[in-house]
Amino acid sequence: MSQAKWIWYHGDFELYHSMLLHARREEFGCEYPTFWKLSPPYPNVRFFKSYHADEEDVVRFVTRAKAYVMVDNDRLPVNTDLKIGAGDHNIMVVTLATEGLPCLYVDSKYLKTDESWIADHMIVTHRVPVGCTPAYTSPEDNPEVFRFSYERLDPVKATKTEQGTLYDFGRETYAYLCIEGADQNDRIRVTYGESREEALDHAEALIRETVSGKGTYRLSGRAFRYACVQGGKGLKVWADYEYLPIADVATFACNRKNVNKIWDICAYTLHLNSREFFLDGIKRDRWCWSGDAYQSYMANRYLYFDPEITKRTIIALLGKPPYEQHINSINDYSMYLIIGAYEYYFSTGDKQFIEIYFDRLQALYDFIVGRLDENGYVCYRDGDWIFIDWSDMDKGGSLCAEQILLWQCRRCMAELCALVGKDGKAHTDAANALQKRIMKDYWREDRGAFIDCHTTGRENVTRHANIFAIMYGFVSHRRAQKIVRCVLENDAVNQITTPYFEFFELNALCMMGRLKTAQKKIESYWGGMVALGATSIWEQYLPEQKGIEHFGMYGMKYGCSLCHAWGGGPIYLLGRYCLGVYPTSVGYETFAVQPDRGLYRKIEGTVPLPDGHSVHIAMDAHVCAVSATRAGGTLIFGGKEYVIPEVGGLIITF
Amino acid sequence: MSQAKWIWYHGDFELYHSMLLHARREEFGCEYPTFWKLSPPYPNVRFFKSYHADEEDVVRFVTRAKAYVMVDNDRLPVNTDLKIGAGDHNIMVVTLATEGLPCLYVDSKYLKTDESWIADHMIVTHRVPVGCTPAYTSPEDNPEVFRFSYERLDPVKATKTEQGTLYDFGRETYAYLCIEGADQNDRIRVTYGESREEALDHAEALIRETVSGKGTYRLSGRAFRYACVQGGKGLKVWADYEYLPIADVATFACNRKNVNKIWDICAYTLHLNSREFFLDGIKRDRWCWSGDAYQSYMANRYLYFDPEITKRTIIALLGKPPYEQHINSINDYSMYLIIGAYEYYFSTGDKQFIEIYFDRLQALYDFIVGRLDENGYVCYRDGDWIFIDWSDMDKGGSLCAEQILLWQCRRCMAELCALVGKDGKAHTDAANALQKRIMKDYWREDRGAFIDCHTTGRENVTRHANIFAIMYGFVSHRRAQKIVRCVLENDAVNQITTPYFEFFELNALCMMGRLKTAQKKIESYWGGMVALGATSIWEQYLPEQKGIEHFGMYGMKYGCSLCHAWGGGPIYLLGRYCLGVYPTSVGYETFAVQPDRGLYRKIEGTVPLPDGHSVHIAMDAHVCAVSATRAGGTLIFGGKEYVIPEVGGLIITF
Repeated sequence: MSQAKWIWYHGDFELYHSMLLHARREEFGCEYPTFWKLSPPYPNVRFFKSYHADEEDVVRFVTRAKAYVMVDNDRLPVNTDLKIGAGDHNIMVVTLATEGLPCLYVDSKYLKTDESWIADHMIVTHRVPVGCTPAYTSPEDNPEVFRFSYERLDPVKATKTEQGTLYDFGRETYAYLCIEGADQNDRIRVTYGESREEALDHAEALIRETVSGKGTYRLSGRAFRYACVQGGKGLKVWADYEYLPIADVATFACNRKNVNKIWDICAYTLHLNSREFFLDGIKRDRWCWSGDAYQSYMANRYLYFDPEITKRTIIALLGKPPYEQHINSINDYSMYLIIGAYEYYFSTGDKQFIEIYFDRLQALYDFIVGRLDENGYVCYRDGDWIFIDWSDMDKGGSLCAEQILLWQCRRCMAELCALVGKDGKAHTDAANALQKRIMKDYWREDRGAFIDCHTTGRENVTRHANIFAIMYGFVSHRRAQKIVRCVLENDAVNQITTPYFEFFELNALCMMGRLKTAQKKIESYWGGMVALGATSIWEQYLPEQKGIEHFGMYGMKYGCSLCHAWGGGPIYLLGRYCLGVYPTSVGYETFAVQPDRGLYRKIEGTVPLPDGHSVHIAMDAHVCAVSATRAGGTLIFGGKEYVIPEVGGLIITF
Repeated sequence: MSQAKWIWYHGDFELYHSMLLHARREEFGCEYPTFWKLSPPYPNVRFFKSYHADEEDVVRFVTRAKAYVMVDNDRLPVNTDLKIGAGDHNIMVVTLATEGLPCLYVDSKYLKTDESWIADHMIVTHRVPVGCTPAYTSPEDNPEVFRFSYERLDPVKATKTEQGTLYDFGRETYAYLCIEGADQNDRIRVTYGESREEALDHAEALIRETVSGKGTYRLSGRAFRYACVQGGKGLKVWADYEYLPIADVATFACNRKNVNKIWDICAYTLHLNSREFFLDGIKRDRWCWSGDAYQSYMANRYLYFDPEITKRTIIALLGKPPYEQHINSINDYSMYLIIGAYEYYFSTGDKQFIEIYFDRLQALYDFIVGRLDENGYVCYRDGDWIFIDWSDMDKGGSLCAEQILLWQCRRCMAELCALVGKDGKAHTDAANALQKRIMKDYWREDRGAFIDCHTTGRENVTRHANIFAIMYGFVSHRRAQKIVRCVLENDAVNQITTPYFEFFELNALCMMGRLKTAQKKIESYWGGMVALGATSIWEQYLPEQKGIEHFGMYGMKYGCSLCHAWGGGPIYLLGRYCLGVYPTSVGYETFAVQPDRGLYRKIEGTVPLPDGHSVHIAMDAHVCAVSATRAGGTLIFGGKEYVIPEVGGLIITF
């Protein structure tokens, strides 16, 4: 039998922790809970299990909720030992938690709570497999507390300044600052900084706290590299690093040390932002945003291939019907969520996840479609946020980039329908009709570009819609080439300013065979931040800025997050296009390895496959060696295809 | 300016307390939370207010949630004094409560939280007036604790028995049993009883508790008349009666003392069940059931006319979309809720309430309609409970009583639509078509009766559908007379066994001029319980039963609730048909007084009108005196109509 685990209604663990997470933001000493609607867990949940016991068994149903258990037809109390006789039994546990997460734990000889249990939210027609994780296996565990790992970090340097003692922890971290040796009467002021400048600028630093009354402190979990501590004498200051212990499967090395360092920093950036969910950034809002997360799902597949964090993130973002608002309030972010759910399925083959969440995905889709304009276009309605990117775009009418996302969203919904045995033809038909209309309204053959908006007369071109058109295969290869020439390789079109869209752009360019452009950009753009001392990738990078200008954003001197998940793009780009691994069927049952050194002399690395498997690639000017821990792979090299054997690997010399 | 009050998202106070309430049931020492889906409050809520300050004001925004306040364009912290300058200001407070009820309190010179504030659940297009009550006016108040009143009750008698000391509190109560003078080592066993027999029968009593380890105890709030305490020596036992202090406006007296006593016991029964919401009964489940509550709304109008408890009950029952289950899981109970909401409006004129809850009522209606069968009939579907009453009925197919409720529900929905400016014609049309179909399928002209079910061939007649047909005006007067003769006055048709439907039946009979039948039944049926020593009205009464048979129900020796709200019917019947007061337009703007002594020689009483007003009626064989505290009344007497003056009243001698 499997190990006993705490169980809950599938997804409610994520919704509960999403509430906690979105309540934790602080800024300038002020609480700052999120502005979008959050879905709480169901307060009352029933758990079901049928089982057989060979002999009498002593069973204790452990829960913090108000509850009773039905053993066959007897109503019995929880949290006490019950004797259940030999034979077949039907168990139903009815819970009601007026706060927190209703959950249940049973560990007896014949009956254990695990993934084989079923739950409902008191609706007999909506039963789902329970949720559980290997993190909560003892009766004392509490799923209301998220399970992280901890590691002590000591500052690498302490400097006395006029503002107090400045502790440098060597690189960006997320930790609980600990202070020992204080006097109760000390008033200790802590100013955190992702940069040295921020930590020394108490008035403008986003995160700061003043404490007194104790001898030792463990302050809240916060993002920082530097902490400036004022007040107190002879204090001992260290940090308790909090992290999710997901092991990297991926590695990457090439002959350019610079690039290797960028890859490491990107990986570290992703690690710091991989917590309960994929966060946008760890300092400022620490919220979960669907567009940002979508890129993290992609990077995840090329770094850890951890399905759990992607699922947790999708669940938390999806919330529960009724949908009255776009995900994060952003139109594009609703669509990324549906596209992301489909891509999650395609990369993992996890059909059960889609089955459980199909109704919610469908309800979200219906919400999206219910707010289209009379032409079937995504348009602005009260409460919406048409985002796409922090760029100047012509948002005077329906935006082209939103429509291409909608097209992809409709196609993904059709696939999801097929998966659960529903007819999705209407979505495919709608996608096809939408494509025709978009081409008519937004495509300018003479300019080789999609314009932002067709109703304002401005005929403005930005990169975004054009990137999507390539990325999602919206246009023919011929037109895609034209877009590359006329838009992506046209310096007259405004440059992207965020690693977010920079990643999408490079992805599109790599799809069009421009790996070298991406490699150059990794060194100039990501490398530009690293050259400025970044120990994690930033939310925004404008090469023309100087000094602490880089740290400002949103009208705040240190408003720019210096550890932003959407900076992780190179992990994906180098794994996907340089090491060249990608799935050719659902769940990587078959996959291709199509390595391309591009600008590098030598490359070597590992790319994860699902379930802990991986592919290893090493290549230089003369040899290409590929091995995989399981079958299904095809090496595509020099115009030929080679089956990658399950054992031993392939070595091609040329 | 009005007094500052704690504010919350309209209705979330009720949903929060509904969760607490439905988690409190216990039975045989086992927790027993409810089996239907509960809706939690929105975790995040925004509060809005625009106001003007003549001078600088110090304002503190008090909340237990994570929160910030936007004062115009500045983000500021809560729970600290803020200086806000003179001038016009826009305030938005953003809250997120990961547990409990998000709520807010402000009390400064120029800014106070009160009913003039607006809230949303982060959805800009769904703003509602906030909820608040005069019960929470100080910053220390906590709306998460429902505000009751308390009164010390000492037992009227203590008797030593083999089971321990039996304390008799003289009549049914809901109280916290308090024990003083215990030794820490005493193991004190308490057995509660609505009856003496139950308190002395520890093995079969529903509510019991054993405590130890303290010197004084205040046990949980429970329903009982008797408590048997075993263990400990020289204990002092008393009870802390918990109640909602709603004052009776109504009075009733006639020459039959018996009847006056019944009226008083009915009123007391209703009081005990008037708590956060109208409960069904105070001992066993203490839950809130829509059908039971519907009768309490009616009795409320003839006892207190307290709109607040009716509103709280409707809100708690209604919960929040999505609707995936009938109210309390019972098909009829969903329909009573919509009918009850309309009747609430008709009797109070409270249009704002309907405006706030219209979307939910509409969503519930859509749910009801979405589960009809191909003939447009209410039918059983997975998860449904076709209840109507604890009677044998032919439930082998769609039940007639459900269809007549549906007809009334559709008509009420049409009225609610009209009220909020929507077109409800489709509902009226559907009601008309349904009526035709019901008459064709269920009406048996030769038998003067509706049959239960038209598809089983059993042609069974019970009283229930026939009662509804009269009560809701579903049939012509001529057919109604036929029903009275063929069904209601036909002893061959099974008698009603619950005060619940007994009330509906008597209401129908009174509508058909059979007040005397109702008066006789009040003395025989309600009086029958009183003669057996009832101090509150029971859930079920079968006159042919003997001794403790009366206390059994649901297969439990003491399963029958001896204090059940649906026993309050005589309050309504005597106020409505004997004192004769009823509204003739919305909110009793006009009302009729049509007194009828029936069997009584003398009657005198007061009937409430909205807003604390009332009508007083005194009548004997020679004089009829009527006065009202406001205008709008018409006395209908001896075939004539008289305007009841605002001052002084009318005296008719005959």
